[in-house]
Amino acid sequence: MRHVIVGGDAAGMTAAGRIRGAAPDDEVVVFEVGRFTSYSACGIPFVIGGKVAGGVEALIARPPDEHRARGIDVRMNHEVTAVDTAKGEVEYLDHHAGTTSRLGYDRLLLATGGEPIRPDLPGIGLPMIHGVQTLEDAERLVGLAAEACRRVVVVGGGYIGLEMAEAYIERGCSATIVEQDAQPLGLFDADFGQRAADAMTAKGIDVRSKVEVKGFEPGKVVTSDGDLEADLVVLGIGVRPRSVLARDAGIELGAAGAIHVDDHQATTTAGVWSAGDCAESHHLLTGRPVHIALGTYANRHGRVAGVNMAGGDARSPGVLGTAVTKLCALELALTGLTEGKAVDAGFDAMAVTIESTTHAGYLPDAAPMTVRLTVERGSGRLLGGQIVGGPGAAKRIDIVATAITAGMTVAEVADLDLAYAPPFSSVWDPVAQAAIEAIKAV
Amino acid sequence: MRHVIVGGDAAGMTAAGRIRGAAPDDEVVVFEVGRFTSYSACGIPFVIGGKVAGGVEALIARPPDEHRARGIDVRMNHEVTAVDTAKGEVEYLDHHAGTTSRLGYDRLLLATGGEPIRPDLPGIGLPMIHGVQTLEDAERLVGLAAEACRRVVVVGGGYIGLEMAEAYIERGCSATIVEQDAQPLGLFDADFGQRAADAMTAKGIDVRSKVEVKGFEPGKVVTSDGDLEADLVVLGIGVRPRSVLARDAGIELGAAGAIHVDDHQATTTAGVWSAGDCAESHHLLTGRPVHIALGTYANRHGRVAGVNMAGGDARSPGVLGTAVTKLCALELALTGLTEGKAVDAGFDAMAVTIESTTHAGYLPDAAPMTVRLTVERGSGRLLGGQIVGGPGAAKRIDIVATAITAGMTVAEVADLDLAYAPPFSSVWDPVAQAAIEAIKAV
Repeated sequence: MRHVIVGGDAAGMTAAGRIRGAAPDDEVVVFEVGRFTSYSACGIPFVIGGKVAGGVEALIARPPDEHRARGIDVRMNHEVTAVDTAKGEVEYLDHHAGTTSRLGYDRLLLATGGEPIRPDLPGIGLPMIHGVQTLEDAERLVGLAAEACRRVVVVGGGYIGLEMAEAYIERGCSATIVEQDAQPLGLFDADFGQRAADAMTAKGIDVRSKVEVKGFEPGKVVTSDGDLEADLVVLGIGVRPRSVLARDAGIELGAAGAIHVDDHQATTTAGVWSAGDCAESHHLLTGRPVHIALGTYANRHGRVAGVNMAGGDARSPGVLGTAVTKLCALELALTGLTEGKAVDAGFDAMAVTIESTTHAGYLPDAAPMTVRLTVERGSGRLLGGQIVGGPGAAKRIDIVATAITAGMTVAEVADLDLAYAPPFSSVWDPVAQAAIEAIKAV
Repeated sequence: MRHVIVGGDAAGMTAAGRIRGAAPDDEVVVFEVGRFTSYSACGIPFVIGGKVAGGVEALIARPPDEHRARGIDVRMNHEVTAVDTAKGEVEYLDHHAGTTSRLGYDRLLLATGGEPIRPDLPGIGLPMIHGVQTLEDAERLVGLAAEACRRVVVVGGGYIGLEMAEAYIERGCSATIVEQDAQPLGLFDADFGQRAADAMTAKGIDVRSKVEVKGFEPGKVVTSDGDLEADLVVLGIGVRPRSVLARDAGIELGAAGAIHVDDHQATTTAGVWSAGDCAESHHLLTGRPVHIALGTYANRHGRVAGVNMAGGDARSPGVLGTAVTKLCALELALTGLTEGKAVDAGFDAMAVTIESTTHAGYLPDAAPMTVRLTVERGSGRLLGGQIVGGPGAAKRIDIVATAITAGMTVAEVADLDLAYAPPFSSVWDPVAQAAIEAIKAV
């Protein structure tokens, strides 16, 4: 049996490894359009910021030769240009040889990933405009950073854009963020996004909110707030699924244009699976398909797809959209549903917010932190959480994610036996403090 | 109705506040033998180490006058010397006036706390020997530290002893820990305790294992390993419940001599409750009564006792013994049962250990960390966890505590949607990595 995998990053190579392990006699062929396999795109801002000693190479978890040594036929700079699901074949372009060929598959995995959203604006094709997604992007950006890119404009206020703005400031560049909403980080409630904006402003980043980008000219970003001079523009609006190949093959798409999959990562086309940033996930609380591009999900999807393609039976757990970021001195994290999203999804939800400190208040490094929980009225069931604060604040979101997954009420969260010592927490962990407030409120 | 509370620290004052809130017409009298209410004993090592700007006073969450302003009759330097449960009276000694009196109660709370274990050895009464429990202890130790206490010997390898040894090193003293077992922190597995010992040795603390203290002489600790010169001796063996008052009143004692209580914090004597370090807790996994002296439990016990004494209905959740400490550059945490304890309790248990890093491995501040999970064979149910590692490692124990409370299996833990970004974690959180290993093992 031959397994063909399109895409050699986290999802594709995780699946390849699983198939190789479970079905040693099967053939596993991976087509990767780029030059790298199995890397951490999330690490790119830290490379740009000069924090990664090994540079771009250090982000590679496993290069092609390591996969080949395990018996996986990895073909680099090979682009799959079409899928013929009727014949069970892919058509691919070998960028080295310049030749197009076809290869049959018994089982196909589409792990084509995501791509930065490029707004359809005048001048969007200018060479100064860069996405942050692949290691090739990272190489280009590192090369440019070494030259005279002093004025950096980030378009959009998503995680990666904000992290990139900070990275450039750390390199001694100027950085401006242009955000069309009132504050960045639109997945969070507005006041949390504002905290992020304030932290970035305090570090010297020019955060321009409620500003619309109208277009690009050489050395210039044209906005509703006037022109901004720019040597380099970073796209930070978000990621969309790279699903054109699937669409053109007649494979069903779903949420936000991502490839529609069931909880086995199977598409609705027989013999075809999908995993990673190009594929849907299913939300644990709403049960609805969602598109959330996260490295954690790429790894999970890949594992589940690989097990199933090799004849096993694995199921993708529902997702909560748990995410965390560090911006300048501030940590932010969220999981589950904000109050607004919960109400939109039909829950009778409310939010409760508490202010606390990361450590015992009498210690000098105790920093303020805020916890907001989304709770179902009546039942008191926990539906979501957001945390913002100083060092040590944000990873507590995992308590919330675990409790939501277990279906806990806020009364049960308040009763949790959480770890306390002065350098780690106040005697009631801030998450428990928020749960106690929520008990009163619901 | 009159509520009498014996002990004005976390448990007692939390209960007093609850009663005051729920039953505004009731009388609430608190007898406190010392001069302080509502303080953080856990903070004492940080005061000694010079890290708390406000000194001893900063550890007080709420002084007596604040409680009085809320209508709680707090009587300081009043020692309850006997309880007459038949008559419903306490006998108390006013240390200021030097007079003994009696007061009737309708409902009584014993929140007498714990006290450092003082081994019955020759010379144990010498003035150079100090426990670390009350703010009076802290005041004495701060006063001594300001003088010429250069050679400090800590007897025993419990949390507080190790934290005190580090504090004295930070003050420029020498510190020796004398531990009769092969390594300190006996609640952990031996290799975890050894990691703590190594970290402390690396900071210049003299950790003497398998050494028995034979007695004390002025300026000297006599051990099985020879004499140790000492200006100051700190007792760090552990805490025992201060339950003599209860015992003498005929109130039933239980685990490790702690006052026996049900999940409403009620003793077996009508009209008498108990809370805090003097009282039992109930272990969530074994269902057995245990004595675990932790500030978190004192607060919980106090809340539950207060609600019930005021006529409400609150229940103490079971405990997991979740604890965390920071020793020099190392963080350690545990929750639930170690493999040994689980087997002792009748579980068919095994342990799985993984090595990982606190952050993405390519970041310069990524530090090694170890996660060990205790798992029930067959079912895969999570029974316990231990974590040791660099900054950011230990608070992850809360994921384990939450998952145990929810009755999760390691397969469910592996599926948790935990937060990932390079400055916070590897793409699979180390706790999830351990769960994945455990799935294979069970």
